Amino acid sequence: MVIKVKKIGRFHVLTDTLLQHRFSHEQLAGLALEGGADTIQFRQKIGTTREMIQTTGPMQALCRRAGVPLIVNDRLDVAIASLADGIHLGQEDFPIPLARKILGEKTIIGGSASTLDEAHKCLLEGVDYVGFGPVFTTTSKEDAGPASGLGLLKQVVQEIPLPIIAIGGITQENIIQVMQTGAYGIAVISAVCCQKDPREATRIFRSILESGHHA
Amino acid sequence: MVIKVKKIGRFHVLTDTLLQHRFSHEQLAGLALEGGADTIQFRQKIGTTREMIQTTGPMQALCRRAGVPLIVNDRLDVAIASLADGIHLGQEDFPIPLARKILGEKTIIGGSASTLDEAHKCLLEGVDYVGFGPVFTTTSKEDAGPASGLGLLKQVVQEIPLPIIAIGGITQENIIQVMQTGAYGIAVISAVCCQKDPREATRIFRSILESGHHA
Repeated sequence: MVIKVKKIGRFHVLTDTLLQHRFSHEQLAGLALEGGADTIQFRQKIGTTREMIQTTGPMQALCRRAGVPLIVNDRLDVAIASLADGIHLGQEDFPIPLARKILGEKTIIGGSASTLDEAHKCLLEGVDYVGFGPVFTTTSKEDAGPASGLGLLKQVVQEIPLPIIAIGGITQENIIQVMQTGAYGIAVISAVCCQKDPREATRIFRSILESGHHA
Repeated sequence: MVIKVKKIGRFHVLTDTLLQHRFSHEQLAGLALEGGADTIQFRQKIGTTREMIQTTGPMQALCRRAGVPLIVNDRLDVAIASLADGIHLGQEDFPIPLARKILGEKTIIGGSASTLDEAHKCLLEGVDYVGFGPVFTTTSKEDAGPASGLGLLKQVVQEIPLPIIAIGGITQENIIQVMQTGAYGIAVISAVCCQKDPREATRIFRSILESGHHA
């Protein structure tokens, strides 16, 4: 019998090169890892497949060295080619049940949900965690729907027996409130990538997360 | 021992919904199959993964019924999800050797080449056929390089011991010259998709192809 050891991180940093142009995906991953991110997610919707793989390869090497999983957003092909530890699938991405069938139980599969129904669907389809949001209004994701608010996040946390990662508009100012809903962790994009010093921004998030509910 | 029966078509129609908006991918596949195409290729660079899979699923059903392979361009994930018979990989797409490893020997893998060197590389990497071009100037593909002309096509046909599928600017007027280079077959986009009657355009191509070198 294989014991499933699949540790889900509590602080996901999604690297982004559209909202900012100072750092590459690889540089952002490096800075976030140094600052204490425990999951790196590669999310890119443009460019060639080859470019994506050429980007995720070095990111995966960095993540391996840090003992942190690299999760690829949407693209199963890129995830496979870069030997990523996981894949994160939105409602318009590759089907979750088929991804599980292809990637097996050892691969981390996250699903995006913006409603309680979608979170239930993610659960039924076999994800390892649910990325829930946008909790607050966000400018990082063009097609993000209306903000769920903390109330709905809390309801999802209570009803869905999976790690819930809150995403969307999370800042150093509201993270305590977010974690007080019982959320398992958070995912950020601009709150790290678009800050003057992404490493320091990550470090501050991390220290607030570690201080637990102490505001 | 498994006998490898992998028939490569001689008349590939790439469905396109960017150059024209009258027909869907599925409709174009249906018309091309009725007109006598013996390979359908799905090539789309925009839209969500889910949309792509929702499009290729019905296309694959049509192709199965016609006994014609469906080949997905670039996207290994979409090819897997839609149970496509093959994948066509350009120089900036998913790496060919890895695709072969994942998809196995039974899956058709085509590679794009625009130079003799690239055609050699495709051969070494284990493709089943080479799509060579653009032979003539084309408006169907934004990033197509300069036209190779018939001379270079002929050289590729002579040096590369694989089926060579000529692509790029092929019309009912020049197809005879193209086939006289010894090319195994042709692939077209606008010469079918952008014609008033795609089925009839396909039928005419087919009849010229079948008439062999008779001009």
